[in-house]
Amino acid sequence: MPQALHVHLLPTSLDPETLRGGTAVIIDILRASSTMITSLRNGATRVIPCATPEEATLIRQRAAPGTVVLGGERGGVKIAGFDFGNSPAEYSSAAIGGRTLAFTTTNGTKALLTALTAREILIGAFLNRQAVIECLNREDSGTHLICAGTDGIITGEDVLFAGSVVDGLLTSADHSACDQWTLNDGAHIARGYWRQCTSDPAADRSARIEKALLSARIDEAMRHSRGGLNLLSLGYQSDITLCSQLDTTDVIPRYHGEDGSLLSA
Amino acid sequence: MPQALHVHLLPTSLDPETLRGGTAVIIDILRASSTMITSLRNGATRVIPCATPEEATLIRQRAAPGTVVLGGERGGVKIAGFDFGNSPAEYSSAAIGGRTLAFTTTNGTKALLTALTAREILIGAFLNRQAVIECLNREDSGTHLICAGTDGIITGEDVLFAGSVVDGLLTSADHSACDQWTLNDGAHIARGYWRQCTSDPAADRSARIEKALLSARIDEAMRHSRGGLNLLSLGYQSDITLCSQLDTTDVIPRYHGEDGSLLSA
Repeated sequence: MPQALHVHLLPTSLDPETLRGGTAVIIDILRASSTMITSLRNGATRVIPCATPEEATLIRQRAAPGTVVLGGERGGVKIAGFDFGNSPAEYSSAAIGGRTLAFTTTNGTKALLTALTAREILIGAFLNRQAVIECLNREDSGTHLICAGTDGIITGEDVLFAGSVVDGLLTSADHSACDQWTLNDGAHIARGYWRQCTSDPAADRSARIEKALLSARIDEAMRHSRGGLNLLSLGYQSDITLCSQLDTTDVIPRYHGEDGSLLSA
Repeated sequence: MPQALHVHLLPTSLDPETLRGGTAVIIDILRASSTMITSLRNGATRVIPCATPEEATLIRQRAAPGTVVLGGERGGVKIAGFDFGNSPAEYSSAAIGGRTLAFTTTNGTKALLTALTAREILIGAFLNRQAVIECLNREDSGTHLICAGTDGIITGEDVLFAGSVVDGLLTSADHSACDQWTLNDGAHIARGYWRQCTSDPAADRSARIEKALLSARIDEAMRHSRGGLNLLSLGYQSDITLCSQLDTTDVIPRYHGEDGSLLSA
């Protein structure tokens, strides 16, 4: 039976009921998704997404000293009193290893909260793209790729990543034919955008060169997106490059509803 | 000075204040835009967009007998008591010539009403694409391409057309460089989708073949969109082909706020 493969270009245009029983992938490329993935890869024991800075602060107060660090942003900038902002570069093994991250960002957290009806909630970004594709290929339920956007406005980088996953699923060996998936219009649009941004008439390249070239294309596209322009204006240009790197980890943050935290899948 | 060239993938994600002083193009390819353009091309004196069937009926009651015809749909189907539905094929010169069309459709009419803050409101579709591009090239204010969608959900065919206009504006001789326009993320995404749907490594074709090929590609893409699938299920497959034809007319419906009607520009 064909499975739903739906891209929601904004969480606001999404009916939570359609997610029931399915798998949701939360996408906030610049930078919440990328930062959460980096934290877990670098040894954080878990990430607790918090709706407000106060909630994060409370979690630290209730924990044993030194076990919880606070991270996140408002307006792209580190929150006063927090240990770290929203730049993946800050979350080194030394900074985050063996600790819990209480994390709050405006759009990524909100997108996650709209998806609580889903059976599974994963966090995706270019950094773990291939792992996400392989994971979704093993699922037998509907797949919903949810672009966080910024303050209710569609952002190109989230749609670009969603398109890359759609393209990966449709071209992977596990699913041989497109008709195993039922794409919504958002999925067609996102895939077209991804393919256009990364198309190249030349061929015959090694896999390593191909990956580097794709990362460069993603980097370039993101420098023209709303989120990318905002980061450039704040002086975070290196974060764009960092968040453009493809397949640097197999870690997929997976949400556990019982204690409200993200653990490495 | 660079001008805004913004695509709004849904009218609901649009702040009407951003349109002030600019030009808005209303896009509801399947089928309101295409039908309004066809009506004016075939000699309708004007088209009055109505929010409700009752409003349209009232306009006919107040006019001299035989001067006003009623057209439109709810759920894709002709409204009881109306002369015509929403199929451009119904609006022949014999049917519409010399008459006023009081017209109501769910999504196209709603999209137009969100754009009343704009200085100019135009109706665009593949049928008048080239004329719309040339018209926008002569404007010196911000351009906003507003995709109507269906019941608050993004539809691929509207985004495809918006992308075709962005692409046309960026590649036209009048505007030599991309940096004369400031694209929002919606514009980048829509353009990518259009270019991907219509890309072809072969070249060296006559303009006539090129146009036919593009129309065929548009037709094909629309058969997979939400709006296209809906029309197929209702038995209107020929309308999809009709609405895929490129540049069949120079007529651009333009909204006149003082009497609330669309006239041929």
